[in-house]
Amino acid sequence: MATLSGEQITVMFLSLGILLATARLLGEAAQRFKQPAVLGEILAGILLGPTVLGALAPQFNSWLFPTQGPNALVHNGLTTFAVTLFLLVAGMEVDLSTIFRLRKSALIISLSGMFTPFLLGFGLAWWIPRFLGMEPGADQLVFALFIGISLSVSALPVIAKTLMDLKLYRSDLGMMVIAVAIFYDLNGWMAFAVILGMMHVGGEAGGGLGLGASGGVGMTIGLTLAYAAGMLTLGRWAIHRILPWLQAHSSWPGGVLGFSLTIGLLGAAFTEWIGIHAIFGAFLAGVALGDSSHLQQRTRVTLEQFISFIFAPLFFASIGLRVNFVAHFDLPLTLLILVIACVGQTLGSSVGARWAGFPPRQSWAIGFALNARGAMEIVLALLALQYGVIGERLFVALVVMALVTSMMAGPMMQRILRRREPARFKDYLNGRLFLARMKAPNRQDAILELAQAAATVTGLGVPMVFEAVWQRELVMPTALPNGLAIPHARLAGLEKPLVVVGISPEGIDFDAGDGQAAGLILMVLTPLEAVEAQLEILADIASTFQEAEVIHRALRCEGYTQFMALLNIQSHEARKDQSAMARA
Amino acid sequence: MATLSGEQITVMFLSLGILLATARLLGEAAQRFKQPAVLGEILAGILLGPTVLGALAPQFNSWLFPTQGPNALVHNGLTTFAVTLFLLVAGMEVDLSTIFRLRKSALIISLSGMFTPFLLGFGLAWWIPRFLGMEPGADQLVFALFIGISLSVSALPVIAKTLMDLKLYRSDLGMMVIAVAIFYDLNGWMAFAVILGMMHVGGEAGGGLGLGASGGVGMTIGLTLAYAAGMLTLGRWAIHRILPWLQAHSSWPGGVLGFSLTIGLLGAAFTEWIGIHAIFGAFLAGVALGDSSHLQQRTRVTLEQFISFIFAPLFFASIGLRVNFVAHFDLPLTLLILVIACVGQTLGSSVGARWAGFPPRQSWAIGFALNARGAMEIVLALLALQYGVIGERLFVALVVMALVTSMMAGPMMQRILRRREPARFKDYLNGRLFLARMKAPNRQDAILELAQAAATVTGLGVPMVFEAVWQRELVMPTALPNGLAIPHARLAGLEKPLVVVGISPEGIDFDAGDGQAAGLILMVLTPLEAVEAQLEILADIASTFQEAEVIHRALRCEGYTQFMALLNIQSHEARKDQSAMARA
Repeated sequence: MATLSGEQITVMFLSLGILLATARLLGEAAQRFKQPAVLGEILAGILLGPTVLGALAPQFNSWLFPTQGPNALVHNGLTTFAVTLFLLVAGMEVDLSTIFRLRKSALIISLSGMFTPFLLGFGLAWWIPRFLGMEPGADQLVFALFIGISLSVSALPVIAKTLMDLKLYRSDLGMMVIAVAIFYDLNGWMAFAVILGMMHVGGEAGGGLGLGASGGVGMTIGLTLAYAAGMLTLGRWAIHRILPWLQAHSSWPGGVLGFSLTIGLLGAAFTEWIGIHAIFGAFLAGVALGDSSHLQQRTRVTLEQFISFIFAPLFFASIGLRVNFVAHFDLPLTLLILVIACVGQTLGSSVGARWAGFPPRQSWAIGFALNARGAMEIVLALLALQYGVIGERLFVALVVMALVTSMMAGPMMQRILRRREPARFKDYLNGRLFLARMKAPNRQDAILELAQAAATVTGLGVPMVFEAVWQRELVMPTALPNGLAIPHARLAGLEKPLVVVGISPEGIDFDAGDGQAAGLILMVLTPLEAVEAQLEILADIASTFQEAEVIHRALRCEGYTQFMALLNIQSHEARKDQSAMARA
Repeated sequence: MATLSGEQITVMFLSLGILLATARLLGEAAQRFKQPAVLGEILAGILLGPTVLGALAPQFNSWLFPTQGPNALVHNGLTTFAVTLFLLVAGMEVDLSTIFRLRKSALIISLSGMFTPFLLGFGLAWWIPRFLGMEPGADQLVFALFIGISLSVSALPVIAKTLMDLKLYRSDLGMMVIAVAIFYDLNGWMAFAVILGMMHVGGEAGGGLGLGASGGVGMTIGLTLAYAAGMLTLGRWAIHRILPWLQAHSSWPGGVLGFSLTIGLLGAAFTEWIGIHAIFGAFLAGVALGDSSHLQQRTRVTLEQFISFIFAPLFFASIGLRVNFVAHFDLPLTLLILVIACVGQTLGSSVGARWAGFPPRQSWAIGFALNARGAMEIVLALLALQYGVIGERLFVALVVMALVTSMMAGPMMQRILRRREPARFKDYLNGRLFLARMKAPNRQDAILELAQAAATVTGLGVPMVFEAVWQRELVMPTALPNGLAIPHARLAGLEKPLVVVGISPEGIDFDAGDGQAAGLILMVLTPLEAVEAQLEILADIASTFQEAEVIHRALRCEGYTQFMALLNIQSHEARKDQSAMARA
């Protein structure tokens, strides 16, 4: 029985632990700067891989992340497992009914948006394959097809996250972008599967069960299409029938979890066997699973959270371990790829959107949204690298392009739509402006107590702050239901908004409609000119504390950190519907 | 870069898919027969491994589950990863405060219950090591210590599940059993860690970073104890401080999930490095994590569900792949191990329980509860097999002993305490007794409609059923709040209880206290003599449909399967607090 030695097990756990910690840490940092988490995760791999750690401490680096031997094999197996499950979850996010509903316009945008970058990429690759970094011995047709497809994919998770941040997710524009992105993903993967089939016949990649070689390209492509069609019709139907039965007669959620994973793993095995990659099988299995209304929210969340926050970071970080991103960075090539990718996709999609009836400004926004390549592009490029279609130079250029286009999407849409993210009260809190135990017995004293805290931070005079808030309060009480009060005022001389949080264990009468004394008091101070920000912050507070339960939990907070944790969990819970999308 | 070939990836996914599906399926089957899931999971491995599939189709078996080469290594890496995460979750279940509260009595029972089987096992192993299957060349002291420890461990998950089934979990007896089992687990693993340290010095197991060899046994044992002490004090303190900060400042639940896994992986790497096994580090990391009240329920559930229902089945099934359970089955040895295990543990624990003040009957029940060895024993035995302390004959005997003692625990406790599981209405439903759209306009017609359905199944006359229920109804209406009604009667000539489910879209007036018309009507018929069963079934219905939301969901069910799924999910949700324990 082949088993790992003690040292090999030590290295396995140590490397996984370090990789996961670094990936999650930099992923969080990226999100802090409103960037997709995948950016930080890949950066983690670049830091720990040959690019940085390998240059600084080559021996330690090759001990911790060996490229040969048992540990390298196990790492390869684990990351293959990880990315396959990631695609299963990505497939579960595909909402077939949305595409179907918007099918006509989506088709127009998709055709224009897919073919423009595809033709640009294909033409260029056919024209100057060597400059683009085609490997010697690679099939030029396969190479050109791959370049074309890799420029025309999109990144559903990044796009969904961007739209949510801009509060556009449920708008017409948002739904259309999502529908088109799903269309791109489905088509991109199908086309890529076909290319992989062609490559196997070309004998590039070792392995396969010989089916590709014996059955020929037609066989592989036929089986691929048959699998896709079967999974989206018969498979989808069968899963929808089986799920309620499983939920009725097996332990919950173990029965459904086990079933979902089994379908994903067997789908992966099948597509790998017919000569295309395992992730394609898992992706389509995910689409079929996710489409069933019988799949409970809880099951989705468990799968998505574990896979998105553990397996996906491990996989994306491991990409940086493979390639030296400095040594293989080629500026002209990267710029060329970036330019044709952006021009092709934004132009193509925008023209399509105009054609489908969107006004010019919105059409451009659609173009830039769909321009984000995100994680999908990187998975695709990695496969092409593994199969020897592209070299490391082009791989690095594609990864950089994927990251840059993803980073561009949000800011460009904001600028084009002249839209900004609404102000959130969470961003204006401060540890020094948190009063865990207010002493004030009544409304007037409470406002004074909060004003004193605000004065220490802003340097404004206490009387001025108090007067402004108190005058406003006298116009109309600021109490909301369930013991929440939001006294507020706009102040001249204030640089940026400020929210003072006070908790009164005894409760203070704020003259509420429901008669409840206010236990949680949030005083909102905004600059005189920021009319809009004030309204947004007040609306944000009202919606955050809509449910009495949230206010009760806030009252139990003993300190600022606990209060922040509550808000953080609350805001994520509120959009748990899109939990996996939200990771981007 | 060492990568897996296409065929190797196919085999990886196919073998994992088949293993998971079989393990889950047989795990479910075991639970159907009120047995622990681990029994079915191990059976799955025995079916797919050398014992059955290997005998029937040796070539296919060695293709799908090779014992050498890259696939075997990857499988070994994955299952090591899986069992380590399983121990992380098992550690999270340990409730240190329970042990602390019951420390005095628990200590008495533990000492008696641990030392009796330990001394029996140690003595026997010292006396007849060859018969017990000591490997030639193994250290006799290490061997005897291992036998002693392996007979004195316990199985927290199995025991918790058994207690819950018998509704004893929250009783004094139940809490004491849990406290002692936790104590056994902590001590057993610590002692085993020390043995592993001794073995490494003996040079049995290859590997280690040479620390064991260079630092000597004292060093390894010292570091082990230092790690355990550090994790349970400083580590626990630090985790409790870090968690709220993470929840406040990182994405949720990704921050905490990533952090938990990182701690587990690094703990595993450390203990593997000092020369004991990785799972020990993960287990203690789990204890430290689980002890923090800041660890949110949602995070626990996500980790526990994914790991308990995916990784644990994969690991336990893979055990059967390693060993031929028929070829290495030795009846005398197995019986001997079984007898000394049972005698030692039940006697030792019972005497301890008497000593701690429990009455005789309860003391015996405590002894039989703690006798269950479950999954922990198997993990321990597998390590001993890997390190060459024991041979396959003894391994098989220990696995069989672990399974038999786990299967015995429930029935023996039932018999000793003269306790049985209360009747549940779910067990008396029937697809033919589900009326999705009742037509009856009033109470009398409704009871007639349900009686007609009951008559078709029982063969009893409609008038007789109707009369009994209607007379009872006239004594006092059977309506409960929120639109639920439970007409019922005891009938002569009925063989076993019967529950007829009716849904009335319009609602039927059952003269409810809250004035609501009944939409969900459950007619409960029980045999004349089964007074207790009737009360239990009625109580079970009332507690299941306590929340209005559950009734509303039931009204939306279109068929029997959906209704069963609802009940199944509901009953698992109700004990989600102990979700990982519930898998057993």
